[in-house]
Amino acid sequence: MPGSPLPPPHLFDIQCSLSYQIEDATDFLFQIHALNAMDQRVLSEALRLTPPVPVHVYADPFLGHRFVRLQAPPGELLLRYEARVQVEGRDWEDEAAETPISELPDNVLHNLMPTRYCESDLLGRAAWKLFGDLAPGTARVQAIADWIFDNLDYERGSTQSTTTASDVYLSRVGVCRDFAHLGVAFCRALNIPARLVAGYAIFDEPPPDFHAVFEAYLGRRWVLFDPTRLSRREDIVRIAHGRDAKDVAFATLFGPAKMLEMNPQLLRVPAAAAP
Amino acid sequence: MPGSPLPPPHLFDIQCSLSYQIEDATDFLFQIHALNAMDQRVLSEALRLTPPVPVHVYADPFLGHRFVRLQAPPGELLLRYEARVQVEGRDWEDEAAETPISELPDNVLHNLMPTRYCESDLLGRAAWKLFGDLAPGTARVQAIADWIFDNLDYERGSTQSTTTASDVYLSRVGVCRDFAHLGVAFCRALNIPARLVAGYAIFDEPPPDFHAVFEAYLGRRWVLFDPTRLSRREDIVRIAHGRDAKDVAFATLFGPAKMLEMNPQLLRVPAAAAP
Amino acid sequence: MPGSPLPPPHLFDIQCSLSYQIEDATDFLFQIHALNAMDQRVLSEALRLTPPVPVHVYADPFLGHRFVRLQAPPGELLLRYEARVQVEGRDWEDEAAETPISELPDNVLHNLMPTRYCESDLLGRAAWKLFGDLAPGTARVQAIADWIFDNLDYERGSTQSTTTASDVYLSRVGVCRDFAHLGVAFCRALNIPARLVAGYAIFDEPPPDFHAVFEAYLGRRWVLFDPTRLSRREDIVRIAHGRDAKDVAFATLFGPAKMLEMNPQLLRVPAAAAP
Amino acid sequence: MPGSPLPPPHLFDIQCSLSYQIEDATDFLFQIHALNAMDQRVLSEALRLTPPVPVHVYADPFLGHRFVRLQAPPGELLLRYEARVQVEGRDWEDEAAETPISELPDNVLHNLMPTRYCESDLLGRAAWKLFGDLAPGTARVQAIADWIFDNLDYERGSTQSTTTASDVYLSRVGVCRDFAHLGVAFCRALNIPARLVAGYAIFDEPPPDFHAVFEAYLGRRWVLFDPTRLSRREDIVRIAHGRDAKDVAFATLFGPAKMLEMNPQLLRVPAAAAP
Repeated sequence: MPGSPLPPPHLFDIQCSLSYQIEDATDFLFQIHALNAMDQRVLSEALRLTPPVPVHVYADPFLGHRFVRLQAPPGELLLRYEARVQVEGRDWEDEAAETPISELPDNVLHNLMPTRYCESDLLGRAAWKLFGDLAPGTARVQAIADWIFDNLDYERGSTQSTTTASDVYLSRVGVCRDFAHLGVAFCRALNIPARLVAGYAIFDEPPPDFHAVFEAYLGRRWVLFDPTRLSRREDIVRIAHGRDAKDVAFATLFGPAKMLEMNPQLLRVPAAAAP
Repeated sequence: MPGSPLPPPHLFDIQCSLSYQIEDATDFLFQIHALNAMDQRVLSEALRLTPPVPVHVYADPFLGHRFVRLQAPPGELLLRYEARVQVEGRDWEDEAAETPISELPDNVLHNLMPTRYCESDLLGRAAWKLFGDLAPGTARVQAIADWIFDNLDYERGSTQSTTTASDVYLSRVGVCRDFAHLGVAFCRALNIPARLVAGYAIFDEPPPDFHAVFEAYLGRRWVLFDPTRLSRREDIVRIAHGRDAKDVAFATLFGPAKMLEMNPQLLRVPAAAAP
Repeated sequence: MPGSPLPPPHLFDIQCSLSYQIEDATDFLFQIHALNAMDQRVLSEALRLTPPVPVHVYADPFLGHRFVRLQAPPGELLLRYEARVQVEGRDWEDEAAETPISELPDNVLHNLMPTRYCESDLLGRAAWKLFGDLAPGTARVQAIADWIFDNLDYERGSTQSTTTASDVYLSRVGVCRDFAHLGVAFCRALNIPARLVAGYAIFDEPPPDFHAVFEAYLGRRWVLFDPTRLSRREDIVRIAHGRDAKDVAFATLFGPAKMLEMNPQLLRVPAAAAP
Repeated sequence: MPGSPLPPPHLFDIQCSLSYQIEDATDFLFQIHALNAMDQRVLSEALRLTPPVPVHVYADPFLGHRFVRLQAPPGELLLRYEARVQVEGRDWEDEAAETPISELPDNVLHNLMPTRYCESDLLGRAAWKLFGDLAPGTARVQAIADWIFDNLDYERGSTQSTTTASDVYLSRVGVCRDFAHLGVAFCRALNIPARLVAGYAIFDEPPPDFHAVFEAYLGRRWVLFDPTRLSRREDIVRIAHGRDAKDVAFATLFGPAKMLEMNPQLLRVPAAAAP
């Protein structure tokens, strides 16, 4: 590839398939588009639906993540999303500072509040007892992620759609979104803004799945942490940020439908294949 | 007042005092400004702080409610907010329709999601069993408000800052914000967008206090309901709307401070007194 | 069968098989023996274990139910229990009275207390609001059983080993033991002693399973209620009574073992077959 | 005191007053008698009620603790209990062993089960992660008591009558009975039988109050632990043992009454004063 001395450091292909068996006309809200903001650039993308129902795509005016809204008729619905995404390097400095509350941007403040899945109020004393004596900054949030990895068991199917951060703090078992919720809750309890990140990820082991990690506001930017250690942070393509998983679900259904297939693949594009 | 045949239908004066004893420099986030949006117009207002610490006022770019941010030094902090506010008539039609999900505005959708205090997911079956057979529309939401009034006891001090809608559904006792949270949760469970409203209100009985009610999205507008029946909806001046009480707390403190006084007064201005 | 004008009104055969795959030496606590007390008489019974590990059978000195204790070696464990049981008629009067607290027998008092699965304290107001105005007595407890049948969905697999009465009061879905726990909790909240009953039962539909119902203390005796309506009370053979399901589990395991088979059959013995 | 070379090692006087304002005839269940069993001997005692309502005293046939049942008329009720109690030395060996499940006495087994306040099932993984690697025996239970002391804040009024072990594990704050419940729950989760002990105690600081500690079954006997460190175990006189606080409440009321005074004093009798 002559003339291209600086290939993009990280280039990914997304190939995502979802299908549903629908009994009755059902409204869907999908969040499966790669984020075209922050450290990501969507180079190309395509969304196909079978049958070809009309869709409405809505981009959050603040955060930029996209919703797909559609109403599907009875029968089978197949959604296929493909994209090529360029991601900037994520070699953030290791020792960014926490930001004093008085200096937090106005639109970051709400990331301190407890939410459905992240009851930072309930976990306040526990957070301070576990992490209150550590020096503020990136290392403290890393200590949170490490504590979660060390003290929770990762078990598929161990939790439900109603499971919260305080539930898994108690039960000590969960999946990626539970791990991330606990990270968010601990951070907020310590007055560190934090939010959930949904994304595509490259895992060492199958099956392919959507991933959930969390971000803390450090050094006046959002820094990614994966307390499951299932994926390197360079191998995650963001879909959406939200207060918790309710904000960033890949699919929200209003009606009687059954998921038949979920296959969200993320593939690293070798440098040589880049245009 | 010659030449003014149509005096404003509802004119209010707010006189709100809050004071705190502060041990250590403490960050505050206040939401005490009357909303200058929707059916309200702030004619005049003044905010005074003693000592006169610098404040930063931030208006939510979407909903228009205002936050006051400040950092108070040790000692006593006194906040005084005064305003005159004009409120449009709230004689909404009695039988507005629910809006199909596919026709909900994009920025209303998130009001269907469960939040920290409004676990509409946990209350789903209960909501459908109690209200699922009623005809959709205003009357159904009124039935929700009536059920709450009939089945919950209003008792000062009965709940805590961590109490949720499902808690009071179980315990059957709470205060205004608990009643409102349960209304929000039931609506969302039925796919009716709903949100919490914090405001000033005229009560029949002392003491003066901030009020919390809820709004449901009906007839493509937001309609107020007060399941406590402590105030008429014409006697409420909105401060803020939010997903739940965490979004609209009149004061959020980051530091060791103690409230000394809370006196939020709302007074109806007689027509003759209007300018 | 000439000369036998009065055959035993209810005669049952129990054929119960349980098997486990055991990894490591595991302690078991079984409660599978038919109760030989109250309105039941065990005419004959046999317990066989393969391999033939030694067992210790312990009868509760108060209530008479029996525990089997054993330690099983790695490998497969097969338990087979067979019994013929005679059950007196259960055509209790329909309108027995509740007993004033001051007249309750000493050893019945503890059946008023909340337990792990039956949080009658949490459900106090709800119970009084739902059933407090009904006339005390059998009809009130029947109203409780009816309310549970009408307001909860019976769904296999909908609950877990940690699910409590207040959980299902909230979620409105459960299995037989959840239904029974809610009945117990409501009764205790109303100061009616109540307890859980585990037993064998004849169901209209397969698969065979252990059953859980509840008993309330009415007319100075224990009266059975089945809020699932899955079985007639004449078609239940008691195994044990307890404060809640933790007291009467058919099997409690201390070690890494997996259940392979559970087949508790109850068969009505035709009058002609009786000896 | 010639001829008495061995004065009783520990001699105590109990002076306990309770009074209530009663609206309507109210049933009471008191547990305030010193236990006359295990390592305690009641040398003398007197119970006086004003007005002198008839009482029924019931001793649990297994554990020996005593209940007082009475019905009080409207007006004021004053209960006064006085006793002199001799307590054996509690210098148990420091390194008793845990008992294998297969060797536990039949009547101790139920102390492994979760109860209303001690949800050992919910805390199972946490208990094993925190204490599972420690060597079994007294030192492990002491490590549990130490962990509770180190990780929970003792704050009067911080919890309610519905607060459980898992609640305080989460909130990290409570009073003596919460500390004891968590100790019980952790032990049971590790298959160590444990129970709550209510008693009189000598505290360094006022006010006098009933105390709650816990016992674990070690070395084939019950060994006391006080995770609050508010009292030495030699300075506790047992009232009752139970599965949790519901079993051993000093007063259970069935009716509208208000406590006016609670003054349970324990005084050490100097050796010279002994008869």
